[in-house]
Amino acid sequence: MLKNTQLEDWDRENFFHPSTHLAEFARGNLAQRVITTASGCHIEDSAGNRLLDGFAGLYCVNVGYGRPEIADAIAAQARELAYYHAYVGHGTEASITLSKMILDRAPEGMSKVYFGLGGSDANETNVKLVWYYNNIRGLPEKKKIISRWRGYHGSGLMTGSLTGLEAFQKKFDLPLDRVLHTDAPYYFRRKDLDQSEADFVAQCVASLEELIAREGADTIAAFIGEPALGTGGLVPPPAGYWPAIQEVLDRHDILLIADEVVTGFGRLGSMFGSDHYGMRPDLITIAKGLTSAYAPLSGSIVGDKMWKVLEQGTDENGPIGHGWTYSAHPIGAAAGVANLKLIDELDLVSTAGKVGAYLKGALNDALGDHANVGDIRGEGLLCAVELVEDRDSRSFFDPKKGVGAAVNAALLSRGVISRAMPQGDILGFAPPFCLSESEADEIAGKLAEAVREVLG
Amino acid sequence: MLKNTQLEDWDRENFFHPSTHLAEFARGNLAQRVITTASGCHIEDSAGNRLLDGFAGLYCVNVGYGRPEIADAIAAQARELAYYHAYVGHGTEASITLSKMILDRAPEGMSKVYFGLGGSDANETNVKLVWYYNNIRGLPEKKKIISRWRGYHGSGLMTGSLTGLEAFQKKFDLPLDRVLHTDAPYYFRRKDLDQSEADFVAQCVASLEELIAREGADTIAAFIGEPALGTGGLVPPPAGYWPAIQEVLDRHDILLIADEVVTGFGRLGSMFGSDHYGMRPDLITIAKGLTSAYAPLSGSIVGDKMWKVLEQGTDENGPIGHGWTYSAHPIGAAAGVANLKLIDELDLVSTAGKVGAYLKGALNDALGDHANVGDIRGEGLLCAVELVEDRDSRSFFDPKKGVGAAVNAALLSRGVISRAMPQGDILGFAPPFCLSESEADEIAGKLAEAVREVLG
Ligand SMILES: Cc1ncc(COP(=O)(O)O)c(C=O)c1O
Ligand SMILES: Cc1ncc(COP(=O)(O)O)c(C=O)c1O
Repeated sequence: MLKNTQLEDWDRENFFHPSTHLAEFARGNLAQRVITTASGCHIEDSAGNRLLDGFAGLYCVNVGYGRPEIADAIAAQARELAYYHAYVGHGTEASITLSKMILDRAPEGMSKVYFGLGGSDANETNVKLVWYYNNIRGLPEKKKIISRWRGYHGSGLMTGSLTGLEAFQKKFDLPLDRVLHTDAPYYFRRKDLDQSEADFVAQCVASLEELIAREGADTIAAFIGEPALGTGGLVPPPAGYWPAIQEVLDRHDILLIADEVVTGFGRLGSMFGSDHYGMRPDLITIAKGLTSAYAPLSGSIVGDKMWKVLEQGTDENGPIGHGWTYSAHPIGAAAGVANLKLIDELDLVSTAGKVGAYLKGALNDALGDHANVGDIRGEGLLCAVELVEDRDSRSFFDPKKGVGAAVNAALLSRGVISRAMPQGDILGFAPPFCLSESEADEIAGKLAEAVREVLG
Repeated sequence: MLKNTQLEDWDRENFFHPSTHLAEFARGNLAQRVITTASGCHIEDSAGNRLLDGFAGLYCVNVGYGRPEIADAIAAQARELAYYHAYVGHGTEASITLSKMILDRAPEGMSKVYFGLGGSDANETNVKLVWYYNNIRGLPEKKKIISRWRGYHGSGLMTGSLTGLEAFQKKFDLPLDRVLHTDAPYYFRRKDLDQSEADFVAQCVASLEELIAREGADTIAAFIGEPALGTGGLVPPPAGYWPAIQEVLDRHDILLIADEVVTGFGRLGSMFGSDHYGMRPDLITIAKGLTSAYAPLSGSIVGDKMWKVLEQGTDENGPIGHGWTYSAHPIGAAAGVANLKLIDELDLVSTAGKVGAYLKGALNDALGDHANVGDIRGEGLLCAVELVEDRDSRSFFDPKKGVGAAVNAALLSRGVISRAMPQGDILGFAPPFCLSESEADEIAGKLAEAVREVLG
């Protein structure tokens, strides 16, 4: 291991970190952290800290850190065949096996999987396929994509346009054309506090109908949504939301893209969020949980209805002009196979459901009565605690106060990682599925301390 | 190993291969090939074939297959820490070390590296940074990007728009707005056969000037180009091209993005193509050669001039809203460090130059006199043989005849992989840098046989 000061200098001089205040980092005013090793739910850094990772990296290390089964699969694949491409019918045992394992687990009506690297490029593929699909169908005007405010679908130009969060668009000239946004299904933040959940859903549906009427259904190709909102606040949908939305989409011949980058492969306590909430998607985006982040791999699962048209498209136009060099990379595929096996063997999907319920209970016990805790919500191992200035009037803090970030920092100083979600004072928890009950208690207890330190 | 028929069924039922005729593959009319292992310049498939890979995967396995040094580095990293994210100042020893190694090797004036997964997402990052840069500079109208016909810059919506090849745009509604194309620096395909190379360069420059004048320099942010055209035909630029282009760009305050996904880290016999041809880029795209494809990793190297403005941007607007979950993935970073060390230790950059010259000589010896060989060109280990119907009039075959694809197939049947490049009858060669002289002779000899089989 190199001396830390040497590494720190190299880091500040050469490394452009994502989602970072570049000037503060270069000046040395923003902490640097070099992660050295990790196991289960804990990571360790070069300064000797051992931290309980309540966010599983970026909600992706679903099976937990340090699994030898996956590391061994990666090592074996690297020795046997680190790379060959998947263009024009090429594959490897790992990538073919994984395609079969994914389709075996996917919701009904799914046909094929296209492999990418990360969630953003998988959504990019989805948009390309949606446009191609309507061109082949002879509907060249039917191209707009509806997303929701507070959705997160990536950080590219198109995927960052689908994302409905200010920080990812400001100064980047996003959103691009052809992207429309509709209401976030965020009942806690409804305008009228007296509105029932059912009325709120009806309002979401009415807004969507209005948007479609205004733009013309013949201009709208698809609707994209996370089964439960992720980065936009970790918000399970209100009851009945997805069936009601699905009905509107079906009526207007609008495809549904379920972005399951966070929810796919167990985080909600079900294999897919689409099944959990009664969505019938035409495309499903997968990434994080597919490999538990041990190696980059994503996918676009294409439903039967679209697949038939894609086949027709290649009969009419020749090979499909879409490909990444690292599509179906053998290392990622090997990690994916080992990861999905481990999830089955350890029954981690139902574990996520159970431990998630336990964690939500512990958060409720620890903070349910606090005057600044407005909402404790979650489904499976996707939980959030939302802070408010006043509980009865549900008034929010001035964002400039940075209350969420302060609580997050106070929690980190106690050795627990959470994520301060954007656009609100929202502490997010999405730990590995192997979280123990005592670790859940530790998260809840220390969060209560952190909240009291900041807010009394 | 699973029975091949089982794998074949799974493949055809579940796997959406990139750049493939989907219907023909599903019907079983397009061959399936399962790669099992590889070593040096050879790959092996499950049917027992052993093939000499004259294209290094997709010109990416630069150090050759089966290098234990890289496999070991991947294995060790997978065991120690398979993943942690790089957001907000986080890193690992491997990713920080690699950022330093990249900057040490980069052309002058480069400041930082942002890590991505593949070449497409790195170019996507570049476009985002270019737009951000001009927004921070208060030039919100200066946003268009000029690319070249026959350039290849990726397969996303924006990157596929920058790409100037029909197959990647047709039926996908590309190119998007804000993308302009100018002449390909493809001297062999000049319209007027009598034009000198210098006059051809002057014409490329004049076309570019015209385009800029027509659109207005105040609307144009950047120019993107591969130092030597890759997928568009494997064409080294005519003498003096880059300095002449660079002068125009400088005069109009237009940034230069050097897409070195293929050329970076040695393929031309120099560490970077920018240095090789006298480009002074503001951004450099790297991918393939960075890890020799052993694990997915790409990068955007940002020059000093832009970096200062990016820092200013975060002082004014807070953390930069750009990030991929798998940015600076530890497995990719470990592969990159081991790969760059190996390149140094084995002196593979200068080897690429020497073996490349040998290969070009062998191709010339074998085919220089053939009536249908119009051009044998190359720089380092990036070579092409372009076929013509008639040499004197330099007339091309009817594309419907598929002459290039037929020669490619005839060569494959002899155990050698080349790539039939799009939009022409162009056989491409970009083998691993460890290609031996006898392997180069084998490529040239068998290509001559294949050409004679198809064309007499
Ligand atoms: C729902 C969702 N979609 C897409 C993405 C983008 O994935 P990536 O960061 O791998 O590009 C994310 C990342 O957090 C996500 O949460
Ligand atoms: C010059 C160039 N840029 C970008 C890319 C895109 O890289 P990727 O396929 O990894 O997305 C390629 C791929 O061949 C390339 O050759």
